Amino acid sequence: MTTQQMASSARKEGVETMRWREGRLEMIDQRVLPAHFNYVYTDSAVSVADAIRTMVVRGAPAIGVAAAYGLAMEAVRCSGLPQEQFKAAMKHGIDVLAASRPTAVNLFWALERMRRVWDASVQSGQAQQAARLLEEAHEVYAEDIRINQQMGAYGAKLLLDGARVLTHCNAGALATAGHGTALGVFRSAVAAGKRISVLADETRPFLQGARLTAWEMVQEKIPVTLITDNMSGHLMSNGEIDAVVVGADRVASNGDVANKIGTYMVAVLAHRHNIPFYVACPLSTIDMSIGTGADIPIEERSASEVTGFRETQWAPMGVQVRNPAFDVTPAELVTALITEKGVVHQPDRNKLRELLSIGSRK
Amino acid sequence: MTTQQMASSARKEGVETMRWREGRLEMIDQRVLPAHFNYVYTDSAVSVADAIRTMVVRGAPAIGVAAAYGLAMEAVRCSGLPQEQFKAAMKHGIDVLAASRPTAVNLFWALERMRRVWDASVQSGQAQQAARLLEEAHEVYAEDIRINQQMGAYGAKLLLDGARVLTHCNAGALATAGHGTALGVFRSAVAAGKRISVLADETRPFLQGARLTAWEMVQEKIPVTLITDNMSGHLMSNGEIDAVVVGADRVASNGDVANKIGTYMVAVLAHRHNIPFYVACPLSTIDMSIGTGADIPIEERSASEVTGFRETQWAPMGVQVRNPAFDVTPAELVTALITEKGVVHQPDRNKLRELLSIGSRK
Repeated sequence: MTTQQMASSARKEGVETMRWREGRLEMIDQRVLPAHFNYVYTDSAVSVADAIRTMVVRGAPAIGVAAAYGLAMEAVRCSGLPQEQFKAAMKHGIDVLAASRPTAVNLFWALERMRRVWDASVQSGQAQQAARLLEEAHEVYAEDIRINQQMGAYGAKLLLDGARVLTHCNAGALATAGHGTALGVFRSAVAAGKRISVLADETRPFLQGARLTAWEMVQEKIPVTLITDNMSGHLMSNGEIDAVVVGADRVASNGDVANKIGTYMVAVLAHRHNIPFYVACPLSTIDMSIGTGADIPIEERSASEVTGFRETQWAPMGVQVRNPAFDVTPAELVTALITEKGVVHQPDRNKLRELLSIGSRK
Repeated sequence: MTTQQMASSARKEGVETMRWREGRLEMIDQRVLPAHFNYVYTDSAVSVADAIRTMVVRGAPAIGVAAAYGLAMEAVRCSGLPQEQFKAAMKHGIDVLAASRPTAVNLFWALERMRRVWDASVQSGQAQQAARLLEEAHEVYAEDIRINQQMGAYGAKLLLDGARVLTHCNAGALATAGHGTALGVFRSAVAAGKRISVLADETRPFLQGARLTAWEMVQEKIPVTLITDNMSGHLMSNGEIDAVVVGADRVASNGDVANKIGTYMVAVLAHRHNIPFYVACPLSTIDMSIGTGADIPIEERSASEVTGFRETQWAPMGVQVRNPAFDVTPAELVTALITEKGVVHQPDRNKLRELLSIGSRK
């Protein structure tokens, strides 16, 4: 079985966020879901970087996988060039991909992994280097799904039968190569026979909750209730939420969590109401080079996302806008991280260091 | 000067939320602002109740004023009927208006006030009863503006020069007969020479912040920055918010505040960051018959508001929806109530009782 076949067989769900077809990476266009279901075709570092920047594909793990393919496709595309031009194209490809979005660390993690593979294969011919990079991209893809399934199994144990679970944004199959991180926990819980129901924050301005999480849950017939981002506090105070599970874009070495804007407000409210707040994230999301969440770069996106949605604009001319895409939830508010190597309760620097040493021993 | 002329002269701002013209109450259609600026014409209790229910007019004080006019217009309209039919029509008018929306107490306060005026004039002819009720509606209108200006003067003193102030929903001229409650505080602060800047939560699902508050502030050249409802926590943690001022739909006798959904989350975050949280509300919003916020009825509105906005629908078919229109902020999170009789720090039952006794002595 090739790694590509493994990747294919590892994907168990109907949602095929990305797929490798005829030498191109095809990605579901997440900007237009659920009204339209289209694939966008990419065949170079630049086209993948564009897809990441414009949010055709989003979600930290999915961005990492896409970037790995982007560099591999760049190698294939340029493998016939003279050596110096090939190297320059590859370096440019890495730069373009690295500049596509700043907050999710999985992007940089994947590019670093691909760069190491490239370095290790640099003595072979360019076609072989490209083949090796493509094989690694398939492995990153397959590994992401395996990891999500492991996280799902650990996370499912934390949810009681009948639990009403809130999630924010989309940390689903669409945010990964498949299965999902937070939604992977829900899928695994349902597969284990637990009757859970999901509350989905709509997650303005890009509406990942309303469009993507709701869509994924409806597809799989997991009961899902959509709310606007300002309602979870009221439902918590009414005793209508039993747990919160979200994903992460980057976890600092002290356990602070950068995730989609609004996560922090949910975490503060959950803390006030003694509701467990779980973060499902692969080890590749943990960035030990970052001391605290204060050092995580927070992307600021365009005003037009906030003044309306797509072509429907509702704010008046002349209004200023802030549009930070992420916020930081301090470790003190995180009940546990759910990773592929197990659950880390009340994460801190020592626990994360130990976790990663287990990860690297494997 | 007639009360109608007083009402007219009391309105100092450009935003004419409601106006009395040729025997009809004209109201700005707030469903279509800021893209369209239309007046809706009402001439009966039923047409006013429709306007309230469909949110042509919204905001607790504005609803109260509109209801007063609705009953007065019903009296005028039916004054030629036989006595029993007139009485029945008036009672039906009160019932229809009272059933239009459940949470804002100003509606019931205004109807009760009108009913007392009606009772007191019942010995006179029906035309005189109608004239007396119309005069009272004009007085409710004029009084609302005067009260907002008094609240504004008290509230303005609480804001420092240069303050960056967050507000939620629209407690502006559009939510009242004019000047506004929370936005009235901002207007009065600016008039007093303070340079303040406003952060406006967009306030899903009806987008009163993005459409109405942003529009009012842009109209008056008060600097305003629009954010989605999930961003204020991040900005507070960055030290970018100095105070919060919101309105209220009903204040319970213990100081608990029902206001637009999401207010509670803002209050919890403000508390965590030691940011003062002020509620600007006239005495007519305080309901001493209600023990705590838990007893305030919370309106649940239709699913289509949450699954999209107007004709633009973005959520998938098959998703369930919750749509509570209000939430309750416990008194412990309220730094102060700003009323027309002064500022009540850390409101509680005794302070509210004393405040209302001052109000009734006047």
